[in-house]
Order: sequence, then C-alpha cells, then structure tokens
Amino acid sequence: MTKYISFTRPDGTSSFGRLEGESVVDLGAVGADAFLKDALDGDLAALAPTGTFARAAVTLLPVVPNPGKILCVGLNYANHVAETGREQKEHPAIFTRWADSLIADGAPMVRPPESERFDYEGELAVIIGKGGRRIAPENAWDHVAGYAPFNDGSIRDWQRHNIQFTPGKTWPGTGGFGPAMIPAGEVADLGAQRVQTRLNGELVQDQPIADMIWDIPTVIAYCSTFVELQPGDVIASGTPGGVGDKRKPALYMKAGDTIEVSVGVIGTLRNPVIDE
Amino acid sequence: MTKYISFTRPDGTSSFGRLEGESVVDLGAVGADAFLKDALDGDLAALAPTGTFARAAVTLLPVVPNPGKILCVGLNYANHVAETGREQKEHPAIFTRWADSLIADGAPMVRPPESERFDYEGELAVIIGKGGRRIAPENAWDHVAGYAPFNDGSIRDWQRHNIQFTPGKTWPGTGGFGPAMIPAGEVADLGAQRVQTRLNGELVQDQPIADMIWDIPTVIAYCSTFVELQPGDVIASGTPGGVGDKRKPALYMKAGDTIEVSVGVIGTLRNPVIDE
Repeated sequence: MTKYISFTRPDGTSSFGRLEGESVVDLGAVGADAFLKDALDGDLAALAPTGTFARAAVTLLPVVPNPGKILCVGLNYANHVAETGREQKEHPAIFTRWADSLIADGAPMVRPPESERFDYEGELAVIIGKGGRRIAPENAWDHVAGYAPFNDGSIRDWQRHNIQFTPGKTWPGTGGFGPAMIPAGEVADLGAQRVQTRLNGELVQDQPIADMIWDIPTVIAYCSTFVELQPGDVIASGTPGGVGDKRKPALYMKAGDTIEVSVGVIGTLRNPVIDE
Repeated sequence: MTKYISFTRPDGTSSFGRLEGESVVDLGAVGADAFLKDALDGDLAALAPTGTFARAAVTLLPVVPNPGKILCVGLNYANHVAETGREQKEHPAIFTRWADSLIADGAPMVRPPESERFDYEGELAVIIGKGGRRIAPENAWDHVAGYAPFNDGSIRDWQRHNIQFTPGKTWPGTGGFGPAMIPAGEVADLGAQRVQTRLNGELVQDQPIADMIWDIPTVIAYCSTFVELQPGDVIASGTPGGVGDKRKPALYMKAGDTIEVSVGVIGTLRNPVIDE
C-alpha cells in the first residue's frame, strides 16, 4: 500500500509525500507550502521526490489539511438509521464540516467544556482526485483519488439543538482524518473492508463498506449535482451503527480515552481524547 | 453610506474598494489579487486609494467573494417558523453554504434543470470583521464589519430530500450577495430596517430586522462557540415569512424573472433569473 500523507517539514512549511516505514519522501516543491490537494488531479506516482525526512522529524497533518469542501453523509448504514429511530429516505442526508475542524492521526480529539456528549463516528473518507459536476455513477470511480479513515466527532447535544446538525459537527479538534491516503487503485475490494471503531480497545462499531445504503458512486453522483467537486474535496461517507450516543448506557469520549477508527487495509486512525 | 464592494479590475485581477456614484475607488494593492476579507480586520476607512475606475469598467463580485465560512440561520422569524409548520426551539438552526454558490448584484440567479422549485429567501448578511471564538453577546458588535442584502436561493425539493438542508442550499449561482457592504457603524437603527423581497416588483417578504427570534449578538455568540469566526465570514441571518414554497399557490422563480432583496438603508440586491 502506498501511503500519501500531508505534513509540516522541519522548517515549518507544509508539504505532502509518501510515508515509507520510518521515512517520509517529500513530494512537494521546496521553499514554500505545498499541498496534496494541488497534486490530486494528476499522477501522484509520477512525482519526483524533492527530499527525505525521518518520520520523527515531521509533524503529520490531516490527510488533506485544506479541502475546499467536506461533505458528510448521514444515515448511510441501516443499523445506524435504526438506532437513531429515523426512517430511510430515497436520498442521502448531506451535511458539512469545515477544514479547521480536522486533526491528524495522533493529534488530540478535543472535548469542549460546553458538552459532555462527545461521540465518535468511524467512517471511510473518500478523497476526490479529478473534479467535476454532474458526475455519472458509472464514471464516479474516475474521480476518486483514494481513501482514508475518518472520525466525524460529534457534540451530540449541540447537534440536536435544532433541526440542522452543523452546530454539533464542526467544532475545532473533532474531525480525525488520517493517517494516510491509500490510492483507490490499490484497494482491491473496497466493499469487504470493515469500518471498525474501538474506544479504549473495545470494539464499538464494526461494519463492512458493502453495507452502505448509498454506495460511493451514488453519493458522488448525488453530491456533484448540487456542487462542483474539486481535487481534495472530502466525502465522509457515513457511520455504521454503534455510536456512543445510542448505547444503553450512553458511551461518550472523555479525557484520557483513546479512539481508533480502522478501515481494513486502508489503515487505522488513532487519537487521544483531551479536555479543552 | 459608504459602500464597500469587491470587483474584478479591467486587467482581470480581483480587488475591493468603495463605490462612489459612477466611480470605483480601488483600495487593493495593485498588480495582484486583493480581497476585502483580508482588510476587514483593520480600519477600512484608513486605507489609501490605489486607483480609480469607472464603474462600468469593473465587474462586480459578491461582497466577499471568498468567505471561509458562510453560516446560515434557519427559522429566525416567527412567521417563517409558522409557515413551515415547525416548532420554535431554544437555539437557532444553523446550516451552511459554500463560497462558490455566491453571485454578485446583477449576476443571474441560476435555476438548474433538476428542479422547478427555485425559491428566494431575502436576508440580512452580517459580515465579520474581527474574528474570535466564544464571543460574548455584549462584545459581538465589535466583531461586525458591516451588512449587505443576501438571497439564500433554495432548491426546495432537494432541500427536503432528507433531514439536512445542504443539498438544496449551495447550488452554483443561487446565493445572491450584494451589492455592497455598509459599515456597521453607519446603520443607526438596524432593527428598524426591513427585509423586503420583490419578485417581478411584487412585494413577497417584508419584515423588520427587529423581528428576529435570535438577534445578531445571540447568533454571533452561538456560532462562535462551535467555530472560530474569521474576518470575512458571513452570517446569513435568516429569512422572514413569505417564501414562495409556502404560498398557495406556490410561487417559484423562473427564467425571465427579476428578484430583489432590499434591507432598508443597507441597499438593494437585484438579480435576473435564468435557466442553466
């Protein structure tokens, strides 16, 4: 598996490259900030290395630290629809978060003092390569650069203050996105990969991608009808059943916890939880 | 009233400045793109002019063409809550749109072929000057740079495909934002200004700002709890009763129509409607 990451160089500039064991191969132009999203429209494998760092010498960033759009799919697994007590509709529920809510693998998930209902949502993130509008389902795979684990961390009471989710869905330090992008072409059987979330090692979500109600091509076709997708845009494709808020008793994240989201061969995102 | 606008110069670069009758006073650094949002944190009135153009020589842009965040308040006038059949909650409904949905005064509002339910929503846009997090209501006015009319154009059937509004709220060519920002300090009585929407000259919405359920300081305090507001961020503060979708018979926008949103002394946004 090729692992594309975004990181901060020792000189403080941003870049992107390949994680190869304990080395990071820099693929960004040197001397300035370089961003993975600006390369996603082309052939990543053809980029010439511009340097190499020890992994410990760089700071990991979210896979794409600055996506123009993050589209989140709600209610995309039947057991999650069931646990929320909602009905399944003909079209997916789409809401949004902003880039400044994202954190890298290893960075803390931040519970704000305003809430004790800080919940995990393990998901598959789909990273757009070639942009487009009104992408037909049969062409949708051509627009996917790769995948990464995602944790759509949610402040549940704020999410339900009113009928729109935004106030619970884009707090700083709540969107785990990493560790790396695996190119779509290297994932032989996406549907067989399981979204598995573990809170302090306990398995709390476990569902194969194949169980999505609206599959990736359907979601891309739907979303690209009302927005023009651009390279680096992210689709957080929905969480399966097992969220902490619907457990009895409820199971929220708190300071000192470790939350992990694995998506099969796509990797594992691991974050400590802290209080702000 | 001082009218701050964003525009494209004759050489194709972006800038911002003051509209003074038939002249535009350029306030952006020359030779490159300059953006109003980068100046909103400072003293606009102290900026030295860098040039002058005839109004006809420039192309008007949305007041802030590139806000990092556009926060939309739903259900913020009692008569709109009533016409939707929803109940009033303790906190405002917040959803989002993206900057690439914005259009300038005079540019076409675009009805996509996917829907015949293209509706207006006349609103007051609040433009953030100084950024901040957890802004107290009593300090909120210090963070407001100014105001402009806004039309939160909505594709009603897509808005209601599922429980989240996003699929109906951020189509390209649907967010009217202009013509100009009026500095907050020049609007003596904000509450007395009326949001008035006219479709082909017929008054279809008419409500004073004072009728908001959650006033501007309350909305700023609420939103800045879950996001850090930045200069140039936009809060579309909600639409009053009278939307086309709730009329009997329903009244949607169609090609050839003209839709206008006035907000008292803050100005009038006027857009033709076209089919994509």
